Amino acid sequence: MKAAVYHGPNKLEVADVPEPDPTPGTVKVRVGYNGICGTDLHEYYAGPIFIPTEPHPLTGQQLPLTMGHEFSGTITDVGDGVTDYAAGDRVAIMPLYRCGRCPACRAGNYNICAQIGFHGLMSDGGMAEYTVVPTDMLHRLPDNVSLELGALVEPMSVAYHAATLGEPSPEGTSMVFGAGPIGIGLWFALRGKGVDDVFVVEPSATRRAAIEALGARTLDPLAVDVPAFIADHTDGRGADAVYDAAGVQPAVETALACVGARRAMVSVAIYEKPLSTPLLNLVMNESRIQGSLCYTAPDFAAVIDLMSRGVYDTTGWVTSIPLDDVIDEGFEALHAGTKMKVLVDPTGDRDCDGEHTGP
Amino acid sequence: MKAAVYHGPNKLEVADVPEPDPTPGTVKVRVGYNGICGTDLHEYYAGPIFIPTEPHPLTGQQLPLTMGHEFSGTITDVGDGVTDYAAGDRVAIMPLYRCGRCPACRAGNYNICAQIGFHGLMSDGGMAEYTVVPTDMLHRLPDNVSLELGALVEPMSVAYHAATLGEPSPEGTSMVFGAGPIGIGLWFALRGKGVDDVFVVEPSATRRAAIEALGARTLDPLAVDVPAFIADHTDGRGADAVYDAAGVQPAVETALACVGARRAMVSVAIYEKPLSTPLLNLVMNESRIQGSLCYTAPDFAAVIDLMSRGVYDTTGWVTSIPLDDVIDEGFEALHAGTKMKVLVDPTGDRDCDGEHTGP
Repeated sequence: MKAAVYHGPNKLEVADVPEPDPTPGTVKVRVGYNGICGTDLHEYYAGPIFIPTEPHPLTGQQLPLTMGHEFSGTITDVGDGVTDYAAGDRVAIMPLYRCGRCPACRAGNYNICAQIGFHGLMSDGGMAEYTVVPTDMLHRLPDNVSLELGALVEPMSVAYHAATLGEPSPEGTSMVFGAGPIGIGLWFALRGKGVDDVFVVEPSATRRAAIEALGARTLDPLAVDVPAFIADHTDGRGADAVYDAAGVQPAVETALACVGARRAMVSVAIYEKPLSTPLLNLVMNESRIQGSLCYTAPDFAAVIDLMSRGVYDTTGWVTSIPLDDVIDEGFEALHAGTKMKVLVDPTGDRDCDGEHTGP
Repeated sequence: MKAAVYHGPNKLEVADVPEPDPTPGTVKVRVGYNGICGTDLHEYYAGPIFIPTEPHPLTGQQLPLTMGHEFSGTITDVGDGVTDYAAGDRVAIMPLYRCGRCPACRAGNYNICAQIGFHGLMSDGGMAEYTVVPTDMLHRLPDNVSLELGALVEPMSVAYHAATLGEPSPEGTSMVFGAGPIGIGLWFALRGKGVDDVFVVEPSATRRAAIEALGARTLDPLAVDVPAFIADHTDGRGADAVYDAAGVQPAVETALACVGARRAMVSVAIYEKPLSTPLLNLVMNESRIQGSLCYTAPDFAAVIDLMSRGVYDTTGWVTSIPLDDVIDEGFEALHAGTKMKVLVDPTGDRDCDGEHTGP
């Protein structure tokens, strides 16, 4: 079968590899779509970062391996002992390996497991015609959720998890900094939580236009005094929940000038280095910065439920491409900023049960 | 009567001023002791910062005015309508003026009132023989709590409030960065909350020695790899609650490398400028930075109760001086670091119901 195999920085090859067989407790999935994530870009241009160069303690795998941890598909075969799933089941995959024994795992917060691994970074993933995953990674997709949306459950769950940590009130004003895929996911998650008063702060006109087309209100921080606008808009209370999905210093600085008393700015970004942070803002109104990482199963379930209720829309920001084009039309296009979210279609199967957007 | 009157930077004069009379709803207090606070130092060397140069909206006062917002005393007279207090009552003063109408006040968080004022910064305060305060600032002192301890209730409440926001568990490991008066207050507050496993991180040998003499365990961050020590000490869990009472970049950086998953670093410092902050640490284990400011009445009540139970001790870190020496033995000594906490005794009354420490 065909797969996109990572060998190291700038070396991702679409190659012919053996088709995997399910082992006990796992299923074989024919991949519908697999999204390319910012983490994948880091691995490609500056890695290996997460991809192990020696056997990973939970998966035993190391590079070279097949990338892809945001994917959906259809089960084609099940391993011994698997009774809950059968061939034909359509699923999204929560690609977390966790140790189950560390304090975080024991508290149910396995998203911050000390040994966390991802299927598609620490094991052969979804940029292939087939992949084999343990059943505890599976989430069934309702009939009205397309495999394309299914591949977006993972990044949308990152955003949903963060949205929850901000404890937003439907009566309050929420703000999202950054209108990339996670920012878009935050906007959908907030809508799904009943928060109507949301502002998305984004300096790029292209990204503002994309999220505006989905129905969002935006602010251009280069043209508007955002803290003054929010203070006026909220009668001085400040924002009820603020999300940083930009990860850059001006966003953090502005976000902390907007967050209301005793409220949170949630950090759901990979900060490449320490940022100059006005901690005095936190002291003066007892606000907080709350970190957010990944998701757990309830986030996946909530996102899939919202998808089945029509909350999510891929129009204008999601593009599907064949596996053969993964470098030029995938990694390079994302790196250049000419596309926002790219789903790789490794099988060429067309997904007939959902709307298909992009070329 | 004698009072220390602030006219502007480097101009604090011990002068003869008229003795104030109580107005309706207020009481006249003969001051026992009045602590000099870091905020007072900032006003003296770099002010006016909080001291108003035009009439304050809640007090109507502006400079010149009598400094001092950390004080205790004995009521000598009461204004019209005051029935809950009488001459002879010994009290600590919670020196907050608040608007009562802003969202923070309405939520009970008047410590972060948008218009907050302090008695002794926005009105004539406690560095005088007498001062007049509204009854809602009064907290009675039990017989076994000295007026000297009473003057410490205010800064100890700053620390107690912060300690609470960190949600420390008696079973967990807490850490305090900085062994100044607020750091000492955090240590006492944590002890009062039943937390026995506390480490105080402080680079100054003098300050380490002072808090060690009170019973604390300390770490010298210049000699110990503090994050590695805590990781080992907690079997990899990290600290249950971390407090930054230092306000400097190395402390914040080290603190965030120690805080456990889903736990808080509480900021209870006045950060003079934005600090380079490793926000990625927050993301990776979903920890948080929580700001803390001042206190509300329950903090005062809790500290006074702990004082009456013998938790607080002034030995080795608190010095009392006469009002006439307030510049040389007070502000200058604190600025030079030769004293840690100075209480001004404006009346020369000796406090006979409690232990007296210092020269």
